[in-house]
Amino acid sequence: MTNNDRTIQTIRQMFDAQSIAVVGASADPSKYGFMTLDCIIKGGFQGKIYPINPRGGEILGLQAYTSLMELPEVPDVAVILVPVQVVPQVIRDAGKKGIPGVVITTAGYREVGRDDLQQELIAVARENNVRIIGPNIEGFIYMPNKLNAQFFPVIENQGPFATISQSGSLTNGLAEWADKEQLGISATINLGNQVDICESDFMEFLAEDDAVKAMGLYLEGVKNGRRFLQALQRVTPQKPVVILKSGRSSAGEKSVASHTASLAGTHKVFHAACRQYGAIPVDNLQDLYDYGKLLSTMEIPQGNRLLILSSSGGIGVIAVDEAETLGIDVPALPQAFVDEIKALNLSPLGSYTNPIDLAAIWAHEFREVALVADKHDVADVFLINFGDPIVGGGEMIIELKKQIKASIAISYMGGAQDEAMDRPRMNRAGVPVFSTPERAVKAIAAAMEYGNFQRKTADEQSGSPAVPISSCDHTACDDKANSACEALQGTQMDALPADAPTNETEKDAETADFLLEPQAVDLIEKYQIPYPPHYFSNNLDELTTAADGMGYPVVLKVVSRDVVHKSDSGGVSVNIENAQALETQYEAMKSRIKAVHPHAVIEGMLVCHQAKEGVELIVGAMDDPVFGPTLMVGMGGIFAEIMQDTAFRVAPLTPAHAREMLMELKGYPLLTGARGMAPCDVDAVVDLIMNLSCLVMENPDIKELDLNPVRVYEKGVLALDARIMR
Amino acid sequence: MTNNDRTIQTIRQMFDAQSIAVVGASADPSKYGFMTLDCIIKGGFQGKIYPINPRGGEILGLQAYTSLMELPEVPDVAVILVPVQVVPQVIRDAGKKGIPGVVITTAGYREVGRDDLQQELIAVARENNVRIIGPNIEGFIYMPNKLNAQFFPVIENQGPFATISQSGSLTNGLAEWADKEQLGISATINLGNQVDICESDFMEFLAEDDAVKAMGLYLEGVKNGRRFLQALQRVTPQKPVVILKSGRSSAGEKSVASHTASLAGTHKVFHAACRQYGAIPVDNLQDLYDYGKLLSTMEIPQGNRLLILSSSGGIGVIAVDEAETLGIDVPALPQAFVDEIKALNLSPLGSYTNPIDLAAIWAHEFREVALVADKHDVADVFLINFGDPIVGGGEMIIELKKQIKASIAISYMGGAQDEAMDRPRMNRAGVPVFSTPERAVKAIAAAMEYGNFQRKTADEQSGSPAVPISSCDHTACDDKANSACEALQGTQMDALPADAPTNETEKDAETADFLLEPQAVDLIEKYQIPYPPHYFSNNLDELTTAADGMGYPVVLKVVSRDVVHKSDSGGVSVNIENAQALETQYEAMKSRIKAVHPHAVIEGMLVCHQAKEGVELIVGAMDDPVFGPTLMVGMGGIFAEIMQDTAFRVAPLTPAHAREMLMELKGYPLLTGARGMAPCDVDAVVDLIMNLSCLVMENPDIKELDLNPVRVYEKGVLALDARIMR
Repeated sequence: MTNNDRTIQTIRQMFDAQSIAVVGASADPSKYGFMTLDCIIKGGFQGKIYPINPRGGEILGLQAYTSLMELPEVPDVAVILVPVQVVPQVIRDAGKKGIPGVVITTAGYREVGRDDLQQELIAVARENNVRIIGPNIEGFIYMPNKLNAQFFPVIENQGPFATISQSGSLTNGLAEWADKEQLGISATINLGNQVDICESDFMEFLAEDDAVKAMGLYLEGVKNGRRFLQALQRVTPQKPVVILKSGRSSAGEKSVASHTASLAGTHKVFHAACRQYGAIPVDNLQDLYDYGKLLSTMEIPQGNRLLILSSSGGIGVIAVDEAETLGIDVPALPQAFVDEIKALNLSPLGSYTNPIDLAAIWAHEFREVALVADKHDVADVFLINFGDPIVGGGEMIIELKKQIKASIAISYMGGAQDEAMDRPRMNRAGVPVFSTPERAVKAIAAAMEYGNFQRKTADEQSGSPAVPISSCDHTACDDKANSACEALQGTQMDALPADAPTNETEKDAETADFLLEPQAVDLIEKYQIPYPPHYFSNNLDELTTAADGMGYPVVLKVVSRDVVHKSDSGGVSVNIENAQALETQYEAMKSRIKAVHPHAVIEGMLVCHQAKEGVELIVGAMDDPVFGPTLMVGMGGIFAEIMQDTAFRVAPLTPAHAREMLMELKGYPLLTGARGMAPCDVDAVVDLIMNLSCLVMENPDIKELDLNPVRVYEKGVLALDARIMR
Repeated sequence: MTNNDRTIQTIRQMFDAQSIAVVGASADPSKYGFMTLDCIIKGGFQGKIYPINPRGGEILGLQAYTSLMELPEVPDVAVILVPVQVVPQVIRDAGKKGIPGVVITTAGYREVGRDDLQQELIAVARENNVRIIGPNIEGFIYMPNKLNAQFFPVIENQGPFATISQSGSLTNGLAEWADKEQLGISATINLGNQVDICESDFMEFLAEDDAVKAMGLYLEGVKNGRRFLQALQRVTPQKPVVILKSGRSSAGEKSVASHTASLAGTHKVFHAACRQYGAIPVDNLQDLYDYGKLLSTMEIPQGNRLLILSSSGGIGVIAVDEAETLGIDVPALPQAFVDEIKALNLSPLGSYTNPIDLAAIWAHEFREVALVADKHDVADVFLINFGDPIVGGGEMIIELKKQIKASIAISYMGGAQDEAMDRPRMNRAGVPVFSTPERAVKAIAAAMEYGNFQRKTADEQSGSPAVPISSCDHTACDDKANSACEALQGTQMDALPADAPTNETEKDAETADFLLEPQAVDLIEKYQIPYPPHYFSNNLDELTTAADGMGYPVVLKVVSRDVVHKSDSGGVSVNIENAQALETQYEAMKSRIKAVHPHAVIEGMLVCHQAKEGVELIVGAMDDPVFGPTLMVGMGGIFAEIMQDTAFRVAPLTPAHAREMLMELKGYPLLTGARGMAPCDVDAVVDLIMNLSCLVMENPDIKELDLNPVRVYEKGVLALDARIMR
C-alpha cells in the first residue's frame, strides 16, 4: 500500500466514522463548540457522538467526557475546537487512544505568523501517528454518512457535487445553494492550512467515491505543484474537476500571502497547468458552482453541437449569442427534421431554425419537438429555455431525459410558482436548471470541453503511456527530442570551436547568474534547437575566417558577463557585409562597450550568420515557484509584450501540448499563412518546444531561459538569441 | 409642445390610466385574454376595468361589453388580445371612442413575414389618431398605478428599477427576480415590433418618472439609431441606462433578423455608441439585472476607491481579484485608520489591510470597522462581504447606510435563514445584496464608471455645449477641424495639380463605387488630413518633374478604376530612388497591369514622396446601418486584422472621444513610447480623427473610407493611402 493509499484509507475511515468525538464541545450557543455539536446532531449522524469538555456533565442531551482518554471506545474521528495552546495535548491523547485522524478547526497558526505553533503541531501529530485535516477550518460535511462535522450549515440534500476549499464561508455558500435547489452535495471539505492531508489527497479520495460525480475546488495555493498535477492526472479522466484559484490580480496574490501564507503561483501558469491536466479552471465563484452543477448531473456530451429550444425568441437569441462567443457549434437543422416538425401543427408563430422559437408555453410542444430533434440526431446537447411558467414542464423534462440520447440542460426565466417547484425537482432528477440562458450555455461549453478531453485521453491511453510529471520521460518525446537527449551523452556540436575555453567557462557559469551566450548556445544545440552558424573567439582573425566560412552578412555580438543588455550597450551589430566591415565593427564595438562599461571584461565576440526575415516568436522557460519547469511561447516582439499574447505549459510536454500552446496564441494565424503569406513550419516549432521541454527537465538548475526571437520559416526555425539564467 | 413631448404625455396617460379596457377578455383560463384580465385584477389596479368580448356577459366578476363603442366612458388605455385580422377594427373603434393609446399583444405581423398587416396597422392607427405600444408583446406593468397590464406575472413590490424589453419572457424573469428579493420594479415595458412608440420614447418617459432610479433595456435592434442616441444623450446624465443588445454573434444576428426583423447593427459599434452617450452596455442578462439593481439603489460613487470588508479571508480575496481585474482602486489603508481599529480590540485573527478580513461573524464588528473607515475617508464604496450567517446584519447595515458617506453594497455567501431574511430587507432599504463578491464588484465597477461619466458630463455642460447628433457642428470641433471645414468653402489645395481633369473625374465619381485615389486625396486634404507631397498625371515627364521637385525616394501608384487592389496587381512601386528608376518603374507597371487586367483603363499614375517609417494605424469610417457615419481606429496591419485591436465611435466626435478611441486600443502604449521608442504625436492623430469626423458628417454619401496606413511620428501624422467608397 502506498502512502497515498494509506491517506485515502484514513480519510475514508474519518468520513465513514461510526463514532465522533467533539473536543471543546460547549453548552454556550455562541461558541463554535456548541454550534459544531449541534450541526452534527441536526445533520442526522447515526453513529455515536462524544462531547469532550473538561467540566464533563451533559451537553445538548449527550454525556460529555472530560478527555479523549476517558471515552468508552476509540472514535473514528475527533473534531478539535479548543484554544491553540491546548491542541498539542489533545493530539497526544488522540494518538494514545488510537484515533486515526482529527479535524482541527482552531486557528492561530501560520496564517497569523505563528509558524512555530504550526511546526509544533506537525511534529506532535507525526510523533503520535495522528493524521490532520486543517487547522484553521470550519470542518467537513460528508452526506453519505450524514456527518455535518462543522459549525455551519446543516445540509439536508445529498447530491452528486462535492467541494474542496481553503475557505469555509465560500464552500458553505456553495453547499447551501446546492441544498436549496436540491442539487445536493456529497461532501464539502475545508482545507485551511493543510499541514497534513492536502487538496490532492482529497481529490483522489473523492475520485473513488461513487457518491461524487464532479468536484469543485477553491484554492489559494497548492501545497506541492507536481503532486497536485499528479492527482489531476489520475482524477480528471474519471471525474470533472472545476477549480477557482484566487490570486488572479497582484493585490489578490498579496492578500493570499497574508491570509493562508500559501505559495501562490502565477495565475496564467496555474490556469494553463490545470487545462493541461484536464481540470477546468474558472474565474469566479458562480462559474465554479454552475459548472460543478452541470458536470455532476448532465451526461457529458458526446460532441459540441447544441440545439437551443425556447418558448420565446429573445431567450433563444441571447443563448445563441453566448454559444457562438464560446465557439459552440449551433448547427443548422436538417430539412427532414423541419418537415416532420411542420407536420405536428404547432404554433403558427413558431420558428424552426436553431435556435428554435416555439412561441408557446406548452410543455407538450417542447416534448414533441425534442423527440423529433433527437430522432434526427440534430445535436449532442439540448438547451431548453423555459420562459414564463411552463405548466408541467418539470415532469415532462424528467420523462424526456429517459427517452432521448442527447444531454439536457434547462434555463428557466420567470415562471413564478411553476419555476419554484420544478427547478429543484429537475435538479434532483439530474437535469441542471439555470437562471439565465447564458449561465447554462457557459456551463455546457465547459462540459463539451471536458468531453473532448475525456475522449482525447481515452485515445491517448490506448496508445502511448501518460507523461510522468516529475521527470523527463524520453519515450514520451518524439524521435527528434530523443536524439536531442542522446546528444547529451557526450557529443560536442561542431559549431562550438574546439579552442573555446570550455572548462573555464563552465566553472565560471557555476557562480554566474547568466550563462555567456556561447555557453547558452552550446546547451540549446545539444538539445537540437537550431541556431545560425556561429563562432566565438576573442581573436579578430579567427572571427573573420569563421565569417568568411559561413558567408555574409553576419552579426557580431559582444560576449561579456558584465554586459547584460547587449543591444542597449551597442554590443550587437547587424548587416555586416564583408570582412572589412567586420573589422570596423569589431573595433567600434570594443570602444562602445568600453565607453559604457569601462570595467567590463570582454570574453570575446560571437559572430553569427545573419538569418533571413521570418515570423518571430519568443519561446522561453522558467522555474515556476509552484510547478517547477514551465514553458512559454508568445508571438514575437510587441505581441508578447504589449498584447500579452503568450501561452504556458508545465514541462514535460507532449507534442500535442506544444501544438496547443501555439494554437492558443491570438497571433497563430500568422504562422498558418495569414495575409497571403506562405504557411510556416509549425512542426519545426513543435519540435523546438519539445526539445526545450527536454532541456529544462534535465537541467533543473535553470531559472529562466529566453529564446528571443525564434524565427519561423516556410521550412525550419532558428533561435537567434539564447539567454539562460541559472 | 414637440412630438416627443406629446408621445411622453400619451404614455403618461396610458400608464396612469384611471380606466382600462381589455379587448379580447376571456373566461377561459388557458387564454391570454383571461390571464391578462386576471393579472390586472390581482395586481390591485384601483381604476375601472372593462372586459370587451363580443359575447358580453360577465368575466371574472366584471361586466363585459361587446365592443369599445359600448363603454360608458372613454378608457385611458385598451389592451388588445384579439386575432390579427380583427385588430384594425378595434383600432378604428378606439379612435372613434377617443382612446389615446392601445397595447397590442397580438402577434403575426412582420416577425412572421406579414409586413403587409403591419403596414395596414400603422395606417389605421395614424388615420384614427391612436398611439400603439407593440404589437407582438406581453404588455406592460406600471407599479405606481398598480397596473399589471400583461398576461404574466403579477408583481407585488414597487421598486426603483424599470425595464424596457423587446422580449416579454426576459423582462418577466427580471421583474420576478426583483419582486422576489424585494428590490421591486417601477415599470416593465414590452416593445415588440415598435410600430409606433419606441424604446427611445419610453426611455425619455422613464427619465422623467420619479419612481425610477435606473433602467435596464433588452434590445434586438433600435428603430432609429440617431434618435436612440439623442434619447441617451438626454437621459443618461440624469439616470443610468443599462443595455443588453442581442446579436453579438453572427448566428445571433441572423436569428434577430428572423425574430423581430429589426435591423441589428454591428455589435462592436453598438457598444461603442452606448458608451459614447453614457449608457452601460452589458453582455448578459445577469449583468443587466445586477447593474440595474445596484444603480437603482446604491448612491452613485463619488470616486473609484473600494474598501472590501469581509467576515473571512477567502471572500475578500476573490473580491479583490475581481476588483483589480476591472481596474478598481483598492487603496492601502492609512496607519491612523489601522491604529484606531486596533484599539477596538476585535478578533486577534483579523487582518486590517484592504481587503479587511475580520475573521468574525459578528455584526457589531462590521459596524465599528465601517464607521472608522468612513471617518478616515478610506474609500468611496464599501463592499461588505457577509459569509455564514451574520446575525442582525441586515438591521445593522440599514442603520449604517444612514450614518456614513461611502456607498454600500453587500455580498452574502451562505447564511441560511439570516440571509433569506436580511437580503430582501436590505434591498428594500436601498442596499443592494449579491450572491457572490464578484457579482457585487462587477456592478460596483459599472457604477463607478457611470459616476465618472456623470461628473465628466457635468463639467462639459458647464463648458461647451453638447454635440448635436444629427449634424456636424463646427463649433464642437477644435480650431484645426474648423479651418478644415472652412477649407470646403472653395480653396483648392496646392498639391492638386491645376491641370488635373477635375470636372471629368468628379462626374465619373458620381457613378463609380470607389473614388480614384487622386480624388480621395483631394477630399481628405480639403479636411486638413495630411498626405505626402504627390502629383497625378498620365504623362511621364510631368511625373518626373514632380518627383524631382518633391525629392526621392518616391512611390508610384497606378490610378485606374479597373484596378481595385493596386498592390496585388503590381500597381504600387516603392523605393524609387531617381528619375531613371521612375521611368523604368513607370513602364514596368504599365506592362504588369496590362498583363493582369488587359482591358483596364489607366487614368494615370500618382507619384508620392515616400514617407519615413513610423507607428502605423488604420483610421476609417463607414456608414453604419443603425447609427450612420461611424469612425474606426485600429493599430496598423496585423494588429487590427489578427488581434482585432480596433475602436469605434459614432460621428460627430468630440476631441475627448477621439482620444478615448486611441486609449482603448491595446496597442496604445506603442503610441506613447513603449519599448524605449519616442512618444508619438497623439494630438496629431486626434486632429486627424476630428477632421475625418467632419468629413464624413459633411459627405453623407460616403459608405466606406480607409486611411491605411496612417503613419504617426514624433511630430505629425501622414495618411499614406486613401480609399473611399460612395
